[in-house]
Amino acid sequence: MENKWKKWSTGENPEHTITEVSKTWNMKDALSLLQENLPEDDPRSTVHLALGDPSLIRCTSPVAEEAVIEALRSSNFNGYPSNCGLPLARRAIAEYLSRDLPYKLSPEDVYVTCGCKAAIETILPALARPGANILLPRPGFPCYESFAALSNLEVRHFDLLPEKNWEVDLDAVEALADENTVAIVIINPGNPCPSIAEIARKLTITVITDEVYAHLTYGEIPFVPMGVFGSIVPVITLGSISKRWMVPGWRLGWLVTTDPTGFFRKVGVVDSIKTLLCHSPDPATFIQGAVPNIIAKTPEEYFSRTVHILKQASEICYSRIKEIPCLTFSCKPEGGMFVMVKLNLSQLKDIKDDTEFCLKLAKEESVTTLPGTVVGLKNWIRISFATELSFLEDGLERIKSFCQRQAKMQSL
Amino acid sequence: MENKWKKWSTGENPEHTITEVSKTWNMKDALSLLQENLPEDDPRSTVHLALGDPSLIRCTSPVAEEAVIEALRSSNFNGYPSNCGLPLARRAIAEYLSRDLPYKLSPEDVYVTCGCKAAIETILPALARPGANILLPRPGFPCYESFAALSNLEVRHFDLLPEKNWEVDLDAVEALADENTVAIVIINPGNPCPSIAEIARKLTITVITDEVYAHLTYGEIPFVPMGVFGSIVPVITLGSISKRWMVPGWRLGWLVTTDPTGFFRKVGVVDSIKTLLCHSPDPATFIQGAVPNIIAKTPEEYFSRTVHILKQASEICYSRIKEIPCLTFSCKPEGGMFVMVKLNLSQLKDIKDDTEFCLKLAKEESVTTLPGTVVGLKNWIRISFATELSFLEDGLERIKSFCQRQAKMQSL
Repeated sequence: MENKWKKWSTGENPEHTITEVSKTWNMKDALSLLQENLPEDDPRSTVHLALGDPSLIRCTSPVAEEAVIEALRSSNFNGYPSNCGLPLARRAIAEYLSRDLPYKLSPEDVYVTCGCKAAIETILPALARPGANILLPRPGFPCYESFAALSNLEVRHFDLLPEKNWEVDLDAVEALADENTVAIVIINPGNPCPSIAEIARKLTITVITDEVYAHLTYGEIPFVPMGVFGSIVPVITLGSISKRWMVPGWRLGWLVTTDPTGFFRKVGVVDSIKTLLCHSPDPATFIQGAVPNIIAKTPEEYFSRTVHILKQASEICYSRIKEIPCLTFSCKPEGGMFVMVKLNLSQLKDIKDDTEFCLKLAKEESVTTLPGTVVGLKNWIRISFATELSFLEDGLERIKSFCQRQAKMQSL
Repeated sequence: MENKWKKWSTGENPEHTITEVSKTWNMKDALSLLQENLPEDDPRSTVHLALGDPSLIRCTSPVAEEAVIEALRSSNFNGYPSNCGLPLARRAIAEYLSRDLPYKLSPEDVYVTCGCKAAIETILPALARPGANILLPRPGFPCYESFAALSNLEVRHFDLLPEKNWEVDLDAVEALADENTVAIVIINPGNPCPSIAEIARKLTITVITDEVYAHLTYGEIPFVPMGVFGSIVPVITLGSISKRWMVPGWRLGWLVTTDPTGFFRKVGVVDSIKTLLCHSPDPATFIQGAVPNIIAKTPEEYFSRTVHILKQASEICYSRIKEIPCLTFSCKPEGGMFVMVKLNLSQLKDIKDDTEFCLKLAKEESVTTLPGTVVGLKNWIRISFATELSFLEDGLERIKSFCQRQAKMQSL
């Protein structure tokens, strides 16, 4: 039997594409590799700063928990979920998002997905056409690269400019797009929406706005959903309860056609979304059943408290990292849960790149950080500050010791 | 913008395959169509007998519910799930399945998936090779056909024989297989495992055993997991908590390499499974966190009670359907939640096929049943008896009225 398989293994493998893609932009592989490099004999706890997992802050809303328990206890939500999501969850999400829009979404505009990742997995093949390409930000989120490759969408990267607070390089976008460009992906908050809407309209491409970090802003610029510009250019909004409610493990996301002109319906994208969702796993029914109460009952204070914690954490990051040799901070973060930090390799004698930096750091200090390569920026590292503040301080202190040692070796 | 899209829409569509596949073997589409045909003005409740959704029996185990609540309240399971499943869930499932095997599974043999559907979605591309084919049962579960097509696996159907209590037509299996056959799918309970193991060994193909209905037997033949024969032939076991614990909406399934010889690891299938799972949504973390207690704490009485209910329901089905004109029962069910019933079209003047039968029945009697075509058997219908007994009796009475009216029209 093994011989038969050996014979096959020399041939071309249909899932080759997945394997190839995974080699470069793969978050899960990178995390496994970091995990493997953690020492077994360090008496200190590991400080996890690689993944943006806000559950590490440990302030899940009790209201959200109770909403799930109530839905579970009702026994009304133990059956198979309906395709596209339970009507009551779709309605609650439509109303929630409509609060910030100049028009009203209908429940049919909302597709409930197994986290935002499943929303990405759905929208990319739904937009794909032979020969089509898509514009993705760099740094970005590696899922887009993987699912674009699996959908036969050619990827063209535009830069986010560190010196301009990570704004989109609009000139690059215009230069990259051609008649086969189907969409541009932006991460919001973080990008200037009106100019993107204008440029997307000019280029006749749709906008996919990744708003998993919606409302998690603490700088001067408030969060504006890209859907506000849905009548200028067709917008697909992706989101989830993972970050704002700090429960990524609940796996509840959404894909929304924020498109008052009905463009996506007219051109058949809505039909494609529905077909694709037939083959995609659904979020647990009782978690969907809890969505109306999760949204309606979470008090404003919960959100302001969590945003305050993130702001504090970002400031700790900023002040501590400034003191660390070999690392350069681009700008103070004003939203989200990450900072991007540049490595000054000339000061790091024994380290050849970002991956080696992160692996050595894990090994020597039991601190995980993400190599920038995974999000498209070689020789940067991405640090998540979504963790308990004492852990964060401890982790940054260890990064400092590590860098000091490295810098010292350099000067020897 | 629409013009640009119109131009594209004439071209070949990359998700064409999915769309085409969906037209024939698609459970969700069939259910939507039935739903649309239900009358709005019927004062009677709809009786749902189309889908095998045991949550309709409304006897979820309180132990399982409490296990989920405890995991949720612990706040230990709000973060992103780890790839392949939480180690504690993998260990609990490995131990649970090992109880009935002559060898011990390791946690690494178990991959936790978003329901059994995601396990099917993973194993088919993991086994696919250029030019390969797979043997699927008819009647079967349409997901296999869809995911086989998406994995470029040629599908070859073998029949389950109604006159032989739906046993596998072993001669047909032998005639269908060739050197490019990678696997045979069986539904267990329902198929004679030892003969299948022997024939699979002879043909050097692996066995995928769909055991979502594991332990739900109430005839003379006890349930024997196919994994028992794992040392004769490499076996992939698919399962979930959906049916035995009657909670399909919780979306927790598994893919297990029940393969003590390590064949799947040696030939690279394990690596493919891991890669594919990187791109697949995970079940909610806290539901995974509850698995050890769901398994350990559910009392035997819960299982014997639910099996007793299913046995009663199957007997009601058998005795009532025998009295209905135009329908022929193949044999008394001894496991699972379905009966397959043959339509005697010659007695049904105004009905041309199974789909029309089911749609008219839905429209006139507010009862949903599944056209056999969806599971590969034209002019049969599939009736689920997983529902409260009073509903079931009511539903069967309405089917009887419907058939009596149809038979009467015939004799006019």
